[in-house]
Amino acid sequence: MSVAPKVLAVCGGVGGAKLVLGLDRILSAGELAVLVNTGDDFEHLGLHVSPDLDTVMYTLAGVVSEAQGWGREGDTRRFLEEVGRLGGPTWFALGDLDLATHVERTRRLRAGESHSDVTATLAGAFGIRREMLPMSDDPVRTLVDTDLGTMEFQEYFVRHRCQPRVRSIRFAGADVARPSRRALELLQSDSLEAVLLCPSNPWLSIDPILAMPALRAALARCRAPVVAVSPVVAGRAIKGPTAKLMQELGHEVSAVSVATHYAGLLDGFVLDELDAALRLRLGMPSIAVPAVMNSLEDRESLARATLDFARGLPVGPRLRRAS
Amino acid sequence: MSVAPKVLAVCGGVGGAKLVLGLDRILSAGELAVLVNTGDDFEHLGLHVSPDLDTVMYTLAGVVSEAQGWGREGDTRRFLEEVGRLGGPTWFALGDLDLATHVERTRRLRAGESHSDVTATLAGAFGIRREMLPMSDDPVRTLVDTDLGTMEFQEYFVRHRCQPRVRSIRFAGADVARPSRRALELLQSDSLEAVLLCPSNPWLSIDPILAMPALRAALARCRAPVVAVSPVVAGRAIKGPTAKLMQELGHEVSAVSVATHYAGLLDGFVLDELDAALRLRLGMPSIAVPAVMNSLEDRESLARATLDFARGLPVGPRLRRAS
Repeated sequence: MSVAPKVLAVCGGVGGAKLVLGLDRILSAGELAVLVNTGDDFEHLGLHVSPDLDTVMYTLAGVVSEAQGWGREGDTRRFLEEVGRLGGPTWFALGDLDLATHVERTRRLRAGESHSDVTATLAGAFGIRREMLPMSDDPVRTLVDTDLGTMEFQEYFVRHRCQPRVRSIRFAGADVARPSRRALELLQSDSLEAVLLCPSNPWLSIDPILAMPALRAALARCRAPVVAVSPVVAGRAIKGPTAKLMQELGHEVSAVSVATHYAGLLDGFVLDELDAALRLRLGMPSIAVPAVMNSLEDRESLARATLDFARGLPVGPRLRRAS
Repeated sequence: MSVAPKVLAVCGGVGGAKLVLGLDRILSAGELAVLVNTGDDFEHLGLHVSPDLDTVMYTLAGVVSEAQGWGREGDTRRFLEEVGRLGGPTWFALGDLDLATHVERTRRLRAGESHSDVTATLAGAFGIRREMLPMSDDPVRTLVDTDLGTMEFQEYFVRHRCQPRVRSIRFAGADVARPSRRALELLQSDSLEAVLLCPSNPWLSIDPILAMPALRAALARCRAPVVAVSPVVAGRAIKGPTAKLMQELGHEVSAVSVATHYAGLLDGFVLDELDAALRLRLGMPSIAVPAVMNSLEDRESLARATLDFARGLPVGPRLRRAS
């Protein structure tokens, strides 16, 4: 692709994909690239499953299940029910349409194509004209140490419904995985206007990306402003296990903890208007805007506010902190 | 299993499965075991697919598509159509229900279970109480040398619809594959009353089984009568490419060629009543009965006639020929 996107969105699954969709609707073709967590990737039923990539892809393609936020709208589970009847595992939902993505991705990966290339091909088949970048072509696996033992992310998240108490989180392979070449290229590009850390779970969905030293360094060095959007609003996580996890890891359940977690990487922070009073504690530029995305309009508004805010930021402070 | 089945049916896919179903309906529990060709097995979309095992399994379970003779009745193709939309291969039909079999088989094989064990588990899940034996736990691959080059069986059979001209057929791995241990055990058993070579394609579906030296030797040595049922009736193959193939391999398209092909292994031969005149050319005991199986009653009648015929045969001549 010859045009360098102006905005790089960094995200995990459902929460982040909402903001990405908002960005998608307000940015022109070629202006947006999305860097997606693959720490959740896992082998299931012999298939390579990339839950976050799929959520972003289905969301951008307009085929995501509205009710779930993941999976395909109108999908059926004939295959999965039959697997159950045959004695196979059914804890991970695989719709009949959704399955085509996993099988086709697995087929191409086994044939030697890179995760990046496969993602581009699949995104193309879904009519997506944004650049979707898996964080790495190499395997990184999010491992959750819990009171029930260490488990892969999907085991923790889906099979055990986040019920085990989390002690710590590791990203196996992140130290040696080579980050997306295209992402590194964009982070060095003069035409990049903003990097947005989407409101995904910082510890589970964004950290796997930041755990790659070269990616983290490139983010710290990049000349465009870096802004995070809080997934925590009024002391509660908008979605999923973020609040429970923050407590278990010993963090105050507030947007402040999220900003603190990204210390050294941010030029600005976006939190919900209900948390406006927390702005004083952030020690960096911030805006308080409606950050709970229910409607499509909510997504667009938050995307626009975040982008406007980012574009107006000076980047000096972060550059000094990171050096 | 402690009871030794009295009848061992040897078969490939659709044609053979019809007779197996007839046998299933007239034999008591524990009296029938089925040895199935796995030379057609292949890797497709990263899945281990065993077309003949599935056809026999679906047939015995009563879930086979009546119209096709293979695949699941009432299956849908949501998955396959989506794979096509994503740019994947769609030439091999994979129904949504059918897919569960392939995925579950593949999962278990990758986990280290033997083909025999996986087949027993799947058959059990389908409520089948007959012993279904893959011909080997080791890979044997039917390779078809054609005027378009050498191709795997499914490439020839499904993708190219048997249109290439066949020069020869090979069974890669058959020389070193260990035959089904249970089949060898049954062939040596004193309680075995008959071995039936079902009306499957001799060159494509039965030969892979006979190509394993130890299996062929055990068949030649076994004390029970061995009877084949002709898949050729009145100079035409009942189904599929048998006639075209026979011509290309230089054989007269008649039941006589089938009997000749099995020379040294048979004690008796079953052909259709339309071919009664050919009996004189066979040089072995035979019966001419209605051998085209359309209805369920046809299957039962042919099974009963074949079994009665086999049980009344002396086995001496074959034993002499094979020695």
